[in-house]
Amino acid sequence: MRVGVLGIGKTPHKIQHHKSLRDLITDAGALAFADAGVTPADIQMLYVGNVGSVGFNYENSTGLMASSHLGTVPAGAVRVEAACGTGAWALHLGTVAIASGLYDTVMVVGAEKMNDLATVEATSIIAQAADSKEEYFSGLTFPSGVALTARSYMRTYGLTEEDLAHTSVKNHHYGARNPYAHLRFECTVEEVMKSAKVADPLKLYEVCPMTDAASAIILCREDILRDQPDKPQVYITATSMASGTWYAASDSLKDGYELFHRPATKAYEMAGVTADDIDVAEIYNSFAIQEPLGIEGLGFAPQGKGWEGAKDGSTWIDGKVGVNLSGGLLCKGHPLGATGATQAVDIIEQLRGTAPPDMQRKDAEIGISACRGGPGSVGAIHIYQRLEGD
Amino acid sequence: MRVGVLGIGKTPHKIQHHKSLRDLITDAGALAFADAGVTPADIQMLYVGNVGSVGFNYENSTGLMASSHLGTVPAGAVRVEAACGTGAWALHLGTVAIASGLYDTVMVVGAEKMNDLATVEATSIIAQAADSKEEYFSGLTFPSGVALTARSYMRTYGLTEEDLAHTSVKNHHYGARNPYAHLRFECTVEEVMKSAKVADPLKLYEVCPMTDAASAIILCREDILRDQPDKPQVYITATSMASGTWYAASDSLKDGYELFHRPATKAYEMAGVTADDIDVAEIYNSFAIQEPLGIEGLGFAPQGKGWEGAKDGSTWIDGKVGVNLSGGLLCKGHPLGATGATQAVDIIEQLRGTAPPDMQRKDAEIGISACRGGPGSVGAIHIYQRLEGD
Repeated sequence: MRVGVLGIGKTPHKIQHHKSLRDLITDAGALAFADAGVTPADIQMLYVGNVGSVGFNYENSTGLMASSHLGTVPAGAVRVEAACGTGAWALHLGTVAIASGLYDTVMVVGAEKMNDLATVEATSIIAQAADSKEEYFSGLTFPSGVALTARSYMRTYGLTEEDLAHTSVKNHHYGARNPYAHLRFECTVEEVMKSAKVADPLKLYEVCPMTDAASAIILCREDILRDQPDKPQVYITATSMASGTWYAASDSLKDGYELFHRPATKAYEMAGVTADDIDVAEIYNSFAIQEPLGIEGLGFAPQGKGWEGAKDGSTWIDGKVGVNLSGGLLCKGHPLGATGATQAVDIIEQLRGTAPPDMQRKDAEIGISACRGGPGSVGAIHIYQRLEGD
Repeated sequence: MRVGVLGIGKTPHKIQHHKSLRDLITDAGALAFADAGVTPADIQMLYVGNVGSVGFNYENSTGLMASSHLGTVPAGAVRVEAACGTGAWALHLGTVAIASGLYDTVMVVGAEKMNDLATVEATSIIAQAADSKEEYFSGLTFPSGVALTARSYMRTYGLTEEDLAHTSVKNHHYGARNPYAHLRFECTVEEVMKSAKVADPLKLYEVCPMTDAASAIILCREDILRDQPDKPQVYITATSMASGTWYAASDSLKDGYELFHRPATKAYEMAGVTADDIDVAEIYNSFAIQEPLGIEGLGFAPQGKGWEGAKDGSTWIDGKVGVNLSGGLLCKGHPLGATGATQAVDIIEQLRGTAPPDMQRKDAEIGISACRGGPGSVGAIHIYQRLEGD
């Protein structure tokens, strides 16, 4: 499968009180239109990832709203939602639409405006992604559920909190260099350890902030991009989606591993590459512990060893594979519906060679994004390749 | 395009206080699994249409919840939402997934549990499908917006309220015979005229009730269904989506016409049929006036003449085309996310010859469903054909 990336755009990732949800969408969209060199009239379908506009912004039907404000009417428009995997799902649907041969050019947008409400209200809205009957009302929240996972990981593999803290150090090293990131400061293991406890053993520097942002991607048939050799020749060569266990309480390490390992195995096969071929990866880490879990699921390290790369350098910019050279969700924040789309934009920038200098992996040719949602219910893998002149 | 319909299922459409959203989904799903002769493990992707679970049922991420309760894990699962066109969008995505060649067997579910709340609260949730900034807070609701459309239609074409009342009479004739319908009584033009005013000129018998229901459809590659010649050979042969003007206030008769006419024209071309070939049609009519608008958009009658069929018999069971032989949304109700999926199930039953006797069109071979959402923002067309042995 080769689906062309014709254009990309993203807004800054931060608290944006002066922007509405529709502002964020049109801002990212305008950048993508300009980058792609197309107009809204060229878009044949619009897929908008948004999780919580009903609660955050008191409006539903984000896809239709976006089509009106982006100017893509009368193209079909829809909102898709799958908890924190939402943006990746929008990308998947756009990719499959092009792969079907039914459409030439489609647009994918991920967007979330989370800071219209007080934090406590927003937290309550996020918690609705859990099971209303068997999780939410029992008091098992996302931080507490992931804390159980972190505790289990540490116990199973004999790790300390200091061992895990290196992941935040690496993410903040790059986040500090990313002009689009929400949190732009470096930190040490000691500072991670001293940051406030959120849900033991998770600490503040191991948790993403609440962020407003949108990202947009315009996809096209392979031959449309081939016919424009002056444009960067980046293609999506695999898309693979999985679901996992729904209940946080049953989210075992094995479940978490399978959630990425299963779709990643399919994606590698689809793209005809292996884990060893990957230069850059964006891996979901709304909590730091999810990065080593993702590294293991994608096959970059054996189970129980995924944390080591942040300490020994093998997941830094010059290591075996550059993981979250954007600063990850820990620094970019996790604007729910945007995240999967932003991961894609960040990888595409790497393959184009247009990432900011201190974040750019040298000669990056093959990238992967791995998005998850719910404590263990969405695993979403995309592979991207720079394919010049073949 | 030929996408096989392997199985269908639907719950009764009514107020169901004893059923939760997940109950409705698993009920419809179990029927579809049994009808298709497959197990949940055979499903490779799950597309769930649901509009308002955040507001109605205090839970988000309906796709993931459904995958857990239907047992389709680890298949990918997502919720899709496009106002009242939601169920049709879920069907579209499932159809495109099969058409892409990437999947063998996928499942589409549409579901809504609207009666967990008081009616006034539910109405407020429905209104969130309008534009929050420029419609909702101005007081322009769906009934008032559609009333403006009805008034405009009557004035433009010189019609009376009695002329339009025939549409409700026809729908209720069939709805009374549909064991799955919410409202099961016949009515006369006089009774329609005497029913309570909702938003002048719309009257109570011209408005759908608030209903709980789910419908499910299992789709497969053409050859999978071909290899089971004992199963009804019904295929989806076209899917076509459009968006329209977003603001109710600018929803002109021309906009409303284009919303169906444009995608229907594409769908006829895709399927290689014409409007004259259609035997049965399910046309969105949450308000009665939307049926004649749909009849015109689909090309069954010239503009301004779409209401006549209900009076002269040409849209009844033995007429030129049988329109809403299920009783339409006026009688089945409009369980938001379910509606587009239920329209599909009802047409598929017609083509299989398994509709209840007094609703079954003789020798129906080609059917169409037309779903809309928002005052004018989604137009969704699907064409279905019985294709024995070719």
